[in-house]
Amino acid sequence: MRLDVFFGVGSMSAADTAGRTVVVIDVLRASTSIAAALHNGARTIIPLDGADEVITRAKAYERREVLLAGERKMLPVPGFDVGNSPHEYTREVVDGKIVLLTTTNGTTALMAVQNARETIVMSYANFTVALERLHSALREGGDVTIICAGRERQFSLEDSACAGRVVKYLSRLLDDLVLNDAAQAAMQLERAYGDDIHHLFRASEHGQALAEAGFERDLELCAMLDAFPVIPLYRDHRITRQLPDGE
Amino acid sequence: MRLDVFFGVGSMSAADTAGRTVVVIDVLRASTSIAAALHNGARTIIPLDGADEVITRAKAYERREVLLAGERKMLPVPGFDVGNSPHEYTREVVDGKIVLLTTTNGTTALMAVQNARETIVMSYANFTVALERLHSALREGGDVTIICAGRERQFSLEDSACAGRVVKYLSRLLDDLVLNDAAQAAMQLERAYGDDIHHLFRASEHGQALAEAGFERDLELCAMLDAFPVIPLYRDHRITRQLPDGE
Repeated sequence: MRLDVFFGVGSMSAADTAGRTVVVIDVLRASTSIAAALHNGARTIIPLDGADEVITRAKAYERREVLLAGERKMLPVPGFDVGNSPHEYTREVVDGKIVLLTTTNGTTALMAVQNARETIVMSYANFTVALERLHSALREGGDVTIICAGRERQFSLEDSACAGRVVKYLSRLLDDLVLNDAAQAAMQLERAYGDDIHHLFRASEHGQALAEAGFERDLELCAMLDAFPVIPLYRDHRITRQLPDGE
Repeated sequence: MRLDVFFGVGSMSAADTAGRTVVVIDVLRASTSIAAALHNGARTIIPLDGADEVITRAKAYERREVLLAGERKMLPVPGFDVGNSPHEYTREVVDGKIVLLTTTNGTTALMAVQNARETIVMSYANFTVALERLHSALREGGDVTIICAGRERQFSLEDSACAGRVVKYLSRLLDDLVLNDAAQAAMQLERAYGDDIHHLFRASEHGQALAEAGFERDLELCAMLDAFPVIPLYRDHRITRQLPDGE
C-alpha cells in the first residue's frame, strides 16, 4: 500500500495515477466549491479549461439547465452566473443544475489525471467522508495518489497541509503504509499548523491574496471542516456525487 | 527582499531566476561532490547532460587535463574516472583537473537557471559560507531563489530540509524577508528534522536507496556540515570556486 503526494502536476507521470485512487485537493477554492455545489443538489459539474469553453459547452443545453461558473485570477468571469466562491453555491442557485466550471488550478489538476481507478475531489469541506473512502481503498490493497493542485503551478501551503492531514490519519490507521518524500513532508507541515486552518490560510500566499481581494467569507467557509460531507467523483470528464461507504 | 523556494524545476518560469541570486541544492550527491572537487583543487567543473556528452567534450582536452565524472541511477558511468561519490573527489584525484560531470538531478537543475545574477551550488557541505553569501545578496537588496533539485523531478526531503535551514537562518537575520509558500514549508520541514541530518537521510527515499546500494559512506560525508567550505559559482556553463566574502 502506497500513499504518494505530489505538489503540483508538473512532476507527475501517467504511472503515478494509473490504476490508483486519486485525490485532487484545491482547498482555495475549487474543491470546496465543488463539494458545496454537489451537497446543495447540483446534478453534475463539468470542469472546463477556460471561459470560452464554458460558453461553447453551454450551447448544448437549455439555458435554465446549466450554471456558468468560474474564475480567472480569483474574480468571477463577467457574464457568468457564479464565480468560484463556495458560498454562492446555495441550494437555490445550484439544485438540479449542470455546473460548467472553469477555475485556474483545480480544473487543470483534474484534467491531468489519467487512467485512475477513481478520482475524488477533496478539501477540508468533505474531509472525513473522503478520508473514509481512501481508508477503504487502501485496506482493499489499492494505492492512493494525492495531487495538491497548488496555485498557478506553484506549491501551495494550504493544499499541502490538507494532504498532510490525510497522511497523518491514514498512517495512524494503517501500519504498513509506504509514503513518498512529499507525503512525509506534507505530514510534517500539517503538524506545524495543526488544526488551526485559519492560521494556515493567513500564512499562505493564496489565502493572503483572497483576503486582500475581499474574499474573507470564502476563507471562513473553506476552513469549516466537513461543511459539505459529499464525495465528488470525477469520471468521464464530469464530477458527480458519490454516496459515502455504507449509505 | 524575497526568498523563494522551488521544489523542482517543473514549476519554475524564467522570471523566477532572472536577475536573482540563485541557489541549486542537490544534497545527495551532486552539490556535495561539486564542493568536494573544488575544495580539493579542481580547476573547474563542467556540468553536462549525459555520458555521451562527457565523452564528446573530453576530446577537446588532453586526457590528463580532464576527469570523466558522473552517475546514472546512482552508479558510476562505466569507463569514467569517478562516479558521483564525494569521497572520490580527493586532492590526489581532482587537483588541477577539469571535471566533466553528468548527474541525474543536480545538473538538470543547474541548466534550467536562466539569466540569474549569480548561481551558487549548495549543500550541507558548504552551508555556512553559502549562507553568508546569500545574506550579503539580500542585504544589498537582491532577491534569492533556491531550487531544490529533487530526484528524477520529484520532491526530495533532504534538498527541501536543507533549503529550509537556509530560510530559517535568513529569516532570523532579516526582519522584512518575504517568503513564498514553499519557503515557509521548507522551514517547517527543517524544524521537524532539526540538526539530525542522518535521521533526515534515513527518512528520505533517496537516502534509503543510496544506503541499500552500499553508499553509506557517501551519506556520512553528505551529512557533514561545512566539510568543504567553498562557494561553487556556476557561470557560462561551468562551475568555479569563488572566494567567500572578505577573503
